[in-house]
Amino acid sequence: MAKLEAYSCFADIANRPALELADRLAALAPVDDAKVFFGSGGADAIDTAVKLARGYWQAHGEPERTHVISRETGYHGTHGYGTSITGIPPNREGWGVLAGENTVAPLHDLDGVEKVFAEVGPERVAAVVLEPVTGAGGVHLPSEGYLEGVAELCRLHGALLVVDSVICGFGRLGTWFGIERFGVRPDMITFAKGVTSGYLPLGGVVVAGRVAAPWWTTPGERTLRHGPTYSGHPTCCAVGLATLDIYEREGLIPRGEELETPLLEALAPLASHPLVHEVRAGFGLLAAVELEPEVLAAVPDAPNKLLAGARAAGVLVRGLGRGVAVSPPLIVEREHLDLLAEGIRAGLDAMPVESPVPSAPGA
Amino acid sequence: MAKLEAYSCFADIANRPALELADRLAALAPVDDAKVFFGSGGADAIDTAVKLARGYWQAHGEPERTHVISRETGYHGTHGYGTSITGIPPNREGWGVLAGENTVAPLHDLDGVEKVFAEVGPERVAAVVLEPVTGAGGVHLPSEGYLEGVAELCRLHGALLVVDSVICGFGRLGTWFGIERFGVRPDMITFAKGVTSGYLPLGGVVVAGRVAAPWWTTPGERTLRHGPTYSGHPTCCAVGLATLDIYEREGLIPRGEELETPLLEALAPLASHPLVHEVRAGFGLLAAVELEPEVLAAVPDAPNKLLAGARAAGVLVRGLGRGVAVSPPLIVEREHLDLLAEGIRAGLDAMPVESPVPSAPGA
Repeated sequence: MAKLEAYSCFADIANRPALELADRLAALAPVDDAKVFFGSGGADAIDTAVKLARGYWQAHGEPERTHVISRETGYHGTHGYGTSITGIPPNREGWGVLAGENTVAPLHDLDGVEKVFAEVGPERVAAVVLEPVTGAGGVHLPSEGYLEGVAELCRLHGALLVVDSVICGFGRLGTWFGIERFGVRPDMITFAKGVTSGYLPLGGVVVAGRVAAPWWTTPGERTLRHGPTYSGHPTCCAVGLATLDIYEREGLIPRGEELETPLLEALAPLASHPLVHEVRAGFGLLAAVELEPEVLAAVPDAPNKLLAGARAAGVLVRGLGRGVAVSPPLIVEREHLDLLAEGIRAGLDAMPVESPVPSAPGA
Repeated sequence: MAKLEAYSCFADIANRPALELADRLAALAPVDDAKVFFGSGGADAIDTAVKLARGYWQAHGEPERTHVISRETGYHGTHGYGTSITGIPPNREGWGVLAGENTVAPLHDLDGVEKVFAEVGPERVAAVVLEPVTGAGGVHLPSEGYLEGVAELCRLHGALLVVDSVICGFGRLGTWFGIERFGVRPDMITFAKGVTSGYLPLGGVVVAGRVAAPWWTTPGERTLRHGPTYSGHPTCCAVGLATLDIYEREGLIPRGEELETPLLEALAPLASHPLVHEVRAGFGLLAAVELEPEVLAAVPDAPNKLLAGARAAGVLVRGLGRGVAVSPPLIVEREHLDLLAEGIRAGLDAMPVESPVPSAPGA
């Protein structure tokens, strides 16, 4: 900040931290001939990726490719396009009208995705957008072959594959961008959160060279008319560089995978709690505890009540539509995971459950 | 940062800098019973405002009010909704499809705005979104009675008025939110840039109490399902608080008006330069120099060539579709405004102009 606290990346002007961070991320990402476009968070990244996907096809002589396929339970921020493609119904509701040309495909059902391609018309699909593990939509773990299958469908039908790694990136699944575990090389990857570990707002899109190509030309030929003031903010990018240094120096990135079994082991016993429908854990350092349908039906605002009970017991969890989620820091030890489980159990035991729901032990 | 470097404002959790900054901005804004929603920049603010405007009518039993009217030359960031409502045609082009239910109304023609209301159907208009002075779209100064007239049309037809003060706020027009000079009290004001003077990414929407009301309720009744991770980032909000302190301590806010005549005086002589079509200045500390249509037709990428020439002469200006713009810091003195004018004149004199364009003196 003492050298250059703020300066927009715009037109032919950039700054050293933005250029260095772009180079490092491009080298780390499983994307061919990668370029990076910076914004200030995950939602910026998604709206940028949707625009780039459609813009790519406009530039490539397939202007009818405007449709975006996303996934049930998918969360992609809350800007205009991100809201319009989310697979979380309550997030789509109440806004009067959304942007068009989007379809939500099934979560675990690859045949269902193929059906959506067929219904939309494969030649009209600009891109598929999805998270490796859907995060805010409920922590739904990957089903065997689904992601690889979607990537293959994209290849087959010529659509772009956009992987939203805002939650799954930077060690959450044990790799830099979360998608490496599937052996898939996307056309774009959106990222945010972990790139600065949240210390300052930053996000962006890693874009394959062929997708960036229409705008990656001699000045004046085709202008990318998409330039946020804080794109490549030098202070935020310097924080990103420092964060990458720490990840590397402390060997934190693999911990998202190393800790996935300990997290599962810590939380698995909660599955037998009478109020719990399911514990989803075991892939990456994130998990969800979902309540029984009867509890959700009987207790108004049940997930927030569970959250409040866990908080009273000293554990901060995140509310979901049907339960709570955890996404602990990469520096946690096994004992902290046990504390997490204890806090959630305390919250469950404190739930104000009435009949006909089976009563919880100790409630 | 030593106390609390990062923490999301989400659900019932906030942080002290975010709360303090919201209180200060709400007290300063010409908005009734003001509340504040934070994002990380101006584009976030606009997408939020469009969602809130439509959502307000959904909650208020007028679900058909989904249409957004914006203004020719209007710029509102580059997220999904902001791109879809911009009045700058090249920014709308090449993206395949945009979000619907938007109409661009004429820039200076109030009767034209009334006509748009009539064509859309006044009962279908959710909001009008416009800048006090259109910035990135060319620095078009207010025409007599236009803004006040639009506000009156909104009142008459029950539509919300959203003023985009991202460029015009924090002293650019000599007041906190730029709109005070028109005696208009909007339903929402979007802000960014000047709130931190760019030192860190921050933006937001000031929302009238009645517009916020549907979501400003007992927890669980109606959830605002719109929550960016970096909303109310404590470090960014602390920077906002420090920036407001400096504006107040150094008396900077009125300077945007005090310097408008000096800026006009400095730039006005450029109007007689043979390559210049028009100099727009005299309202706020921002101005544009527009090139003659013949120059724009004859010289490819003419605004960027002018920009490059000015830069070579030591002056950084911003390129527009038809010329260049300046938006100097509030601490400039008259001598700096003269330097600005000299740099632009040097850029004009260096333009590679060929016949049939009149040749520039000294070119």
